[in-house]
Amino acid sequence: MNNLLQSFIHSNLPIIEQKMNLLIKELKAPQELKDAMDYSLQAGGKRIRPLFTLAVLKELQTNNDDAFVVASAIEMIHTYSLIHDDLPAMDNDDLRRGKPTNHVVFGEALAILAGDALVTFAFGIIARLPNLTAEQKVKLIDRLSYSAGAEGMVGGQVLDMLGEGNSLTLAELEKVHVNKTGALLTISILAGGIIANANDELMEALKKYAFHIGLAFQIQDDILDIEGTSEQLGKTAGKDILSEKNTYPSILTLDGAKEELQNQYNMAIQALQTVNLHQGLLVEFADYITKRAN
Amino acid sequence: MNNLLQSFIHSNLPIIEQKMNLLIKELKAPQELKDAMDYSLQAGGKRIRPLFTLAVLKELQTNNDDAFVVASAIEMIHTYSLIHDDLPAMDNDDLRRGKPTNHVVFGEALAILAGDALVTFAFGIIARLPNLTAEQKVKLIDRLSYSAGAEGMVGGQVLDMLGEGNSLTLAELEKVHVNKTGALLTISILAGGIIANANDELMEALKKYAFHIGLAFQIQDDILDIEGTSEQLGKTAGKDILSEKNTYPSILTLDGAKEELQNQYNMAIQALQTVNLHQGLLVEFADYITKRAN
Repeated sequence: MNNLLQSFIHSNLPIIEQKMNLLIKELKAPQELKDAMDYSLQAGGKRIRPLFTLAVLKELQTNNDDAFVVASAIEMIHTYSLIHDDLPAMDNDDLRRGKPTNHVVFGEALAILAGDALVTFAFGIIARLPNLTAEQKVKLIDRLSYSAGAEGMVGGQVLDMLGEGNSLTLAELEKVHVNKTGALLTISILAGGIIANANDELMEALKKYAFHIGLAFQIQDDILDIEGTSEQLGKTAGKDILSEKNTYPSILTLDGAKEELQNQYNMAIQALQTVNLHQGLLVEFADYITKRAN
Repeated sequence: MNNLLQSFIHSNLPIIEQKMNLLIKELKAPQELKDAMDYSLQAGGKRIRPLFTLAVLKELQTNNDDAFVVASAIEMIHTYSLIHDDLPAMDNDDLRRGKPTNHVVFGEALAILAGDALVTFAFGIIARLPNLTAEQKVKLIDRLSYSAGAEGMVGGQVLDMLGEGNSLTLAELEKVHVNKTGALLTISILAGGIIANANDELMEALKKYAFHIGLAFQIQDDILDIEGTSEQLGKTAGKDILSEKNTYPSILTLDGAKEELQNQYNMAIQALQTVNLHQGLLVEFADYITKRAN
């Protein structure tokens, strides 16, 4: 990882994790529910989404304390989706990042409700922020609802579910990823622009950057499943091939997938060049995402 | 039911149901997901929450087309909570209002996701309304998130779950209901005030009215479980006693519960008197809720 990005993550990641912990702690709610919410929020992860929000703000040279709460709200939505995804009726996963999943620890009923409480809370904490205008908050909530809901993440999960066992075309696979993971990544990047009151040209460039970075992220995930070791990944490598999952390598071959990864990376950088953001954090983020080993 | 209320419901209920149907139809999302969302939204019910929002607006002599969308958003949140409540891991109900529950028709995974999509959509459709100020939208979203989340409805469901099998005091029982059903009823009433730009005195009176009406609603539910027939109720009567559930009659006796119902009704009407709303729709609503046979 490049130096700039490493020191950025080093100084911001603990603040995000503390902020989320504090927001849950302050809730006047049953302790069991708060524990279940907090458990999954504090279970680690790369925190790419909240870090993206903060990175955009830094690149646009804007300081706003409310950004940590917006970033936390997006991570809460990501986390609720993982809790529900892991449920027995969905992917039925007992472990995530080496730890027992939410329903294994707290039971299914409380896991469902902890997820419900997290997505509901995310919208409320944005609405209550003191340093954003009402217009900015409405724009953030509008885009976040769109990205996280039926037309974004939840819709993508349904598409993914319906596609299981069928051979998808490249366009169909792309549609799954654009919705399932791309939509929330995109709002995490656009949120920085909204908080910084970015103009239309800048927002358009950020949107393109987000689109290509989202796909690059997914392609690298698929490549790592083939080339990475279970130890590096913290999960079983080679699972995609065994489960006959639709992936970029399965459709394009491994070499084709690597070429497509490079294409997406190039287009992401081009988008940054149009608005003179092609040196600094966002490029380093793109490097990190396409070259990471886990 | 009184005449004024009957004709009010007759003219508004179809509009709410059409509006919800249209909002789902317009979604660019997988048809299977839209079908699952629509199925539970169109499964009937008294629609008390959206009707309350519209009734308050009518009493405050305010017209605003956006109110139908706000009312729909609240009904979507109520509906998502029923879908998740009925899941095997929660109450495990196969029937609701005489129809198969969502997961019975669409499977558990899609039922979980349909609920997730509904709660997420509810916040977005408010953020996108054209005839409200950004400040009004932020206020609505703030209150709705609070009422529906860990400090309101979801928290109440957790309290209810934790209380099962234990004897609750009257204060503990009241706390469950104030959160589990009262909070969403309250925002449905306050939403009318927010849309009509009601002043603080009016909002305070509406809040008191909502609090007492919410409890009255629950007490009458408990009484009906003892005095109603399964045919009237559309569900098995006498279920509370068999399952040793904590209810107003179990704590106060049946006569005591009836007395408490009258108390709550009186306090609701008193709140309306302080702001001269003690004749008209909101009183008829209170009558209906405390005297209904199902």
